[in-house]
Amino acid sequence: MLKVGFSRVPVSTARTHRLLFNLRRINLATPVGNRSKLIRSVMGSHGTASSQSPKLLFRQLFEKESSTYTYLLADVSHPDKPAVLIDPVDKTVDRDLSVVKELGLKLTYAMNTHVHADHVTGSGLIKSKVPEVKSVISKASGAKADVLIEHGDKIYFGDLFLETRATPGHTSGCVTYVTGDGPDQPQPKMAFTGDALLIRGCGRTDFQSGNSEQLYKSVHSQIFSLPKDTYIYPAHDYKGFTVSTVGEEMLYNLRLTKDEDTFKGIMANLNLAYPKMIDVAVPANLVCGYQDLIPKSC
Amino acid sequence: MLKVGFSRVPVSTARTHRLLFNLRRINLATPVGNRSKLIRSVMGSHGTASSQSPKLLFRQLFEKESSTYTYLLADVSHPDKPAVLIDPVDKTVDRDLSVVKELGLKLTYAMNTHVHADHVTGSGLIKSKVPEVKSVISKASGAKADVLIEHGDKIYFGDLFLETRATPGHTSGCVTYVTGDGPDQPQPKMAFTGDALLIRGCGRTDFQSGNSEQLYKSVHSQIFSLPKDTYIYPAHDYKGFTVSTVGEEMLYNLRLTKDEDTFKGIMANLNLAYPKMIDVAVPANLVCGYQDLIPKSC
Repeated sequence: MLKVGFSRVPVSTARTHRLLFNLRRINLATPVGNRSKLIRSVMGSHGTASSQSPKLLFRQLFEKESSTYTYLLADVSHPDKPAVLIDPVDKTVDRDLSVVKELGLKLTYAMNTHVHADHVTGSGLIKSKVPEVKSVISKASGAKADVLIEHGDKIYFGDLFLETRATPGHTSGCVTYVTGDGPDQPQPKMAFTGDALLIRGCGRTDFQSGNSEQLYKSVHSQIFSLPKDTYIYPAHDYKGFTVSTVGEEMLYNLRLTKDEDTFKGIMANLNLAYPKMIDVAVPANLVCGYQDLIPKSC
Repeated sequence: MLKVGFSRVPVSTARTHRLLFNLRRINLATPVGNRSKLIRSVMGSHGTASSQSPKLLFRQLFEKESSTYTYLLADVSHPDKPAVLIDPVDKTVDRDLSVVKELGLKLTYAMNTHVHADHVTGSGLIKSKVPEVKSVISKASGAKADVLIEHGDKIYFGDLFLETRATPGHTSGCVTYVTGDGPDQPQPKMAFTGDALLIRGCGRTDFQSGNSEQLYKSVHSQIFSLPKDTYIYPAHDYKGFTVSTVGEEMLYNLRLTKDEDTFKGIMANLNLAYPKMIDVAVPANLVCGYQDLIPKSC
């Protein structure tokens, strides 16, 4: 308990240092509990504010209506500052392209982690405004795009790259994009998990060839196998979290910390409402790279 | 223009490297325009994903109803992992305290950038749940709190600290908290600007002793004087931005890039609605450290 009694933050540096010294003496004498040790060992190092690379520019963007996160990554050491957007939303395309322009970036890929059911992807609209941008989605999704990726494929932007990990279960075509290994690649790693792994939760498995057994295996084999300090950046958050880590989710995820049978039971009994956007979003997103082919009903 | 024609992301590393080499040749031959030069010189280096310190743990949290950002910072190199929350919201206190607990942190300060008019601060509720936490607000705010700070005061958590800069204008008691100078302090710096500077905007100046002339001077003298790569973390965002930089705002802020008279004219003609929460939030927030003293009408 930090019980140093002062009612005013010290202005004097000398006094600050004296107080700090006293605080340290108190704290160093305090035994560290077993729980803290467990947290440290499971979560790995947290000695960073975020991932670090001398080349990476990173922005997290939010679309409030569907609570979707869009991620902008660029190699700013490259003369062209090539950039990618992960999971852009149609309603916020103008905002995203404005940021890209203001930061002097060259958008090369509009990537999707999967065929979303709760919003229309922005990739088609982006391509209509910036024709040289390539849309990206997994081959297993069954959707159309300029680049159909598979497990193990790498997407380069400048010297940086994202590696594709197949993480089906929420949908059959879900992938997680993970920053690469090598010099100047971000450390800790960053994993863009789509709806496979959400912060303290996961995507539903009752639509779009969803399969809870498959999702459980995907998360455990492809995401929980990453270093514990890997940052988790999901496609959505509904409670205001912006980031987590592999270590945190292995300890505190409300569903994925359970054994497989318990997890399957949880997922089978969520009793969620029919997704209100699914009949609009899925047909549109199946042609995510070709906005002009979206059925008229959309 | 990146016009390397491939319809499949290369699996082979050799092919990837060949493509990358070709991309580089194209890009290195491309002259860098004046605008790009200007952006680079004004914005400073962007060669980081976020601020970096071997000691800092940082989390940005969002409250959707009032579009408020709460920030969690901790020194995880210290045995006690002392932490501060900036601008907590009453409705998300349980979430915030849960994260603090899960990460094994010891919350020491619940800090406010100002007396908010759009939501009730969480600092009183936090103190009722964790009595050793001290509430912090500026003396100039006229609000009650355990620690009343003034310009230049430093708030330590472990070896890390935040320095207070008076930035009145949205309210007369607004402050900006800026991470410190020195070894292991975050680099680039981080500035928690409250409502003084928002991303591409700023707080209104027509209530709570607001003064547009004062706000203009505050932002230009206290925030735009920081290094260009300083990250701007505001108290709110309504468009889904999570972070900006001093350099970006100096170039692209829709209001603060204007001359002072134009700025005053903009602020005088916003014609905003009466803030719907102001009559509840301001009386409550004036006793932010003492939730039990909140007037019955709140």
